[in-house]
Amino acid sequence: MSLLVEKLRKTVPAYRDSIKEFGKTHGEKDISKVSVGALLGGQRGVLGMLCDTSIVPPDKGLIIRNIPLMDLVDKLPEECLWLLLTGELPTAAETKDLQADLGKRTRVPDYVWKILESFPKDAHPMAVFDTLILAMERESVFRKRYDEGMKKDEYWEPTLEDLLNLIAKIHTIGAAVYRWKYDLGARIDPKPGLDWGANYAYMMGTKDPTGGFARLMRLYMVLHSDHESGNVSAHTCHCVGSALSDPYYAVSAGLNGLAGPLHGLANQECLAWLEMVVKKFNGKPSDEQLDAFARETLGSGRVIPGYGHAVLRITDPRFVAFRAFGEKEGLKSDVFKLACQVYDVVPKILQTIQKIKDPWPNVDAMSGSLIHAFGVTQSQYYTVMFGVSRAMGMCSQLVMSRAWGEPIERPKSITLDELKAKVK
Amino acid sequence: MSLLVEKLRKTVPAYRDSIKEFGKTHGEKDISKVSVGALLGGQRGVLGMLCDTSIVPPDKGLIIRNIPLMDLVDKLPEECLWLLLTGELPTAAETKDLQADLGKRTRVPDYVWKILESFPKDAHPMAVFDTLILAMERESVFRKRYDEGMKKDEYWEPTLEDLLNLIAKIHTIGAAVYRWKYDLGARIDPKPGLDWGANYAYMMGTKDPTGGFARLMRLYMVLHSDHESGNVSAHTCHCVGSALSDPYYAVSAGLNGLAGPLHGLANQECLAWLEMVVKKFNGKPSDEQLDAFARETLGSGRVIPGYGHAVLRITDPRFVAFRAFGEKEGLKSDVFKLACQVYDVVPKILQTIQKIKDPWPNVDAMSGSLIHAFGVTQSQYYTVMFGVSRAMGMCSQLVMSRAWGEPIERPKSITLDELKAKVK
Repeated sequence: MSLLVEKLRKTVPAYRDSIKEFGKTHGEKDISKVSVGALLGGQRGVLGMLCDTSIVPPDKGLIIRNIPLMDLVDKLPEECLWLLLTGELPTAAETKDLQADLGKRTRVPDYVWKILESFPKDAHPMAVFDTLILAMERESVFRKRYDEGMKKDEYWEPTLEDLLNLIAKIHTIGAAVYRWKYDLGARIDPKPGLDWGANYAYMMGTKDPTGGFARLMRLYMVLHSDHESGNVSAHTCHCVGSALSDPYYAVSAGLNGLAGPLHGLANQECLAWLEMVVKKFNGKPSDEQLDAFARETLGSGRVIPGYGHAVLRITDPRFVAFRAFGEKEGLKSDVFKLACQVYDVVPKILQTIQKIKDPWPNVDAMSGSLIHAFGVTQSQYYTVMFGVSRAMGMCSQLVMSRAWGEPIERPKSITLDELKAKVK
Repeated sequence: MSLLVEKLRKTVPAYRDSIKEFGKTHGEKDISKVSVGALLGGQRGVLGMLCDTSIVPPDKGLIIRNIPLMDLVDKLPEECLWLLLTGELPTAAETKDLQADLGKRTRVPDYVWKILESFPKDAHPMAVFDTLILAMERESVFRKRYDEGMKKDEYWEPTLEDLLNLIAKIHTIGAAVYRWKYDLGARIDPKPGLDWGANYAYMMGTKDPTGGFARLMRLYMVLHSDHESGNVSAHTCHCVGSALSDPYYAVSAGLNGLAGPLHGLANQECLAWLEMVVKKFNGKPSDEQLDAFARETLGSGRVIPGYGHAVLRITDPRFVAFRAFGEKEGLKSDVFKLACQVYDVVPKILQTIQKIKDPWPNVDAMSGSLIHAFGVTQSQYYTVMFGVSRAMGMCSQLVMSRAWGEPIERPKSITLDELKAKVK
């Protein structure tokens, strides 16, 4: 038995009992309201579900299992996955055990590659990636065990088994989609002994598997791994999983949400804006030029992509971590330098001109410029990288839901006429 | 321009305005509460979203656009689709126009069939079906138009375009999965001029395209087309769609939820139970035998699948409609006759022995026995039929959401520790 399973077998029963007990004692207490505005506004602000893997306080940004993100920037994705699942960072031995376990599960079934080769080249890489994840539903251990009639208390274990099988392969599939889509040559198999994040970079075809891009991929995978449970991808995965669909169904569904322009495409839009500015000024503009251009943009009713986060009241710590990484690596690309410069220039303008109280950037205003600086310039592909990372959080949330036996998600809808009658 | 588009262009602006106006006037009013129990209980009873296509009052069952289901049993699926989208039943000319429009969109891209042929035969038909829908994301008109920069008020139109393209092909894909999975010979192309429901039966390989199975498919497609917006498949489609993912992403995600044992598998479980009873008694048991067996089953803590609906306080009208259909068709199979007999025997026992107030059956207690009676005995496939039908409702809800410009769905999650602090 792996150390991860061993640990969770010890902690899951107490976790389940504590939630059941809490529900019994306090079930009747109201903790949130739904106004007409919230119902029509996508339930913004409504407390809708339990999620213990991470929180996003508006004044602090992402905190994974009580550890602020800035304290996780030197961790490996595997360590982050262990943390998401168990609530504690792993020891060196535990990390090694998880890596060895994942290393045994890397083989992608042949039919997945046949399906990849069946797509026309002009298919969107995110749709292709999602499709391949869904196609692997055949491998689900959860479905097999469910069909055989397992007990409810056992649901989390084959869910974890599916998680490990999926995470062990998802970067290989993501990298294969990249090489296929952009005609970069044959698929590259994972390199045994290389860690998960570096292996992703390696399989995409980076020349130096221990170099800067591998370091970026490790960091990227940690920073995007989770973001509580109300965002569209996590919520979708949660909703699908609540019907006891297996993790392949649930994660593919979540990725379908991530593919939406309002969710996973922001980093593309930010990068496109940065590239446009670099082109316009034949390189990085001066501070005065950028200031004037930003004022002109805002004055004409357009926005600076990535600035003015809907939730955060501070600079997204993921932005801070990425910027620090780029500076430490000494990146010299115009786009990265511009992304840093925008941060020094734009918030001031937003505060003074538009009286925006929270003019700070989110992660998207920086992430694309780093990936771009390492030569991965096909921004249409970036959502796939986001998906490879976010699968860790989605899967971990699903394991926790199964651990305590969360019931099916089933709110009630209402028609406009009923709503009108109700407010009278 | 099709009559459907013409009609919606006239009605959409007023619909949008009425919701916006209502939100402005009554936005602050509270209409629902979230208790700790509801948060831990999948938001059961919480009003979460607007949906005008259908309602399911516990004392009445499904009502589509103000028309009780029993008044729709003689309608074609195409008429039902028009109703879902416009709120009115179509005239004969409108039905013909919609059928002609769908008839021009039937061609499934070749790569879809290549992907189908790439799957191992032991893949689950529902997973294969979902995968093929997702693979067609390449065809999305919405994504193309979004990338070109359309206005928000226009979103519903390419969403409708995607809906029509998808519905025009989805029965062909569903039928092809059936023939492929069970080695029934080459795919069958849709028959021009045949209506949508009958065409599904025809492409599955039924010998008489105008016979009983075709009539069943028409009815089945109407009865399963929609069920308000809080169920897992509709809600998932809604959530994914709210990030402006296109209908292929959103419907595939919804189908992933439908694949869950707690959602779309109930009809399989009901049929398996009926088959088991028929086998046990070498045919249909006598009323006394069934009564004794049902008491024994309940006495040992097991359930009679399909009885005791979680929402309805009456016999599901879909059950009533299906039973009437089977009787009218004069079905003679043991399984169908048993399904009818169970309805006469079991609710009484549930009322007297278990004191269950609402012992009535839902649709699943009948639907499988009808499909089975027509020789489609592979119950693992039944969820695909459910999905082919429910795609109409999911897509219609998505068009309506885009019509009024619904924002991204984004509730808030909370940790157990935060929850504990909140109730103190």
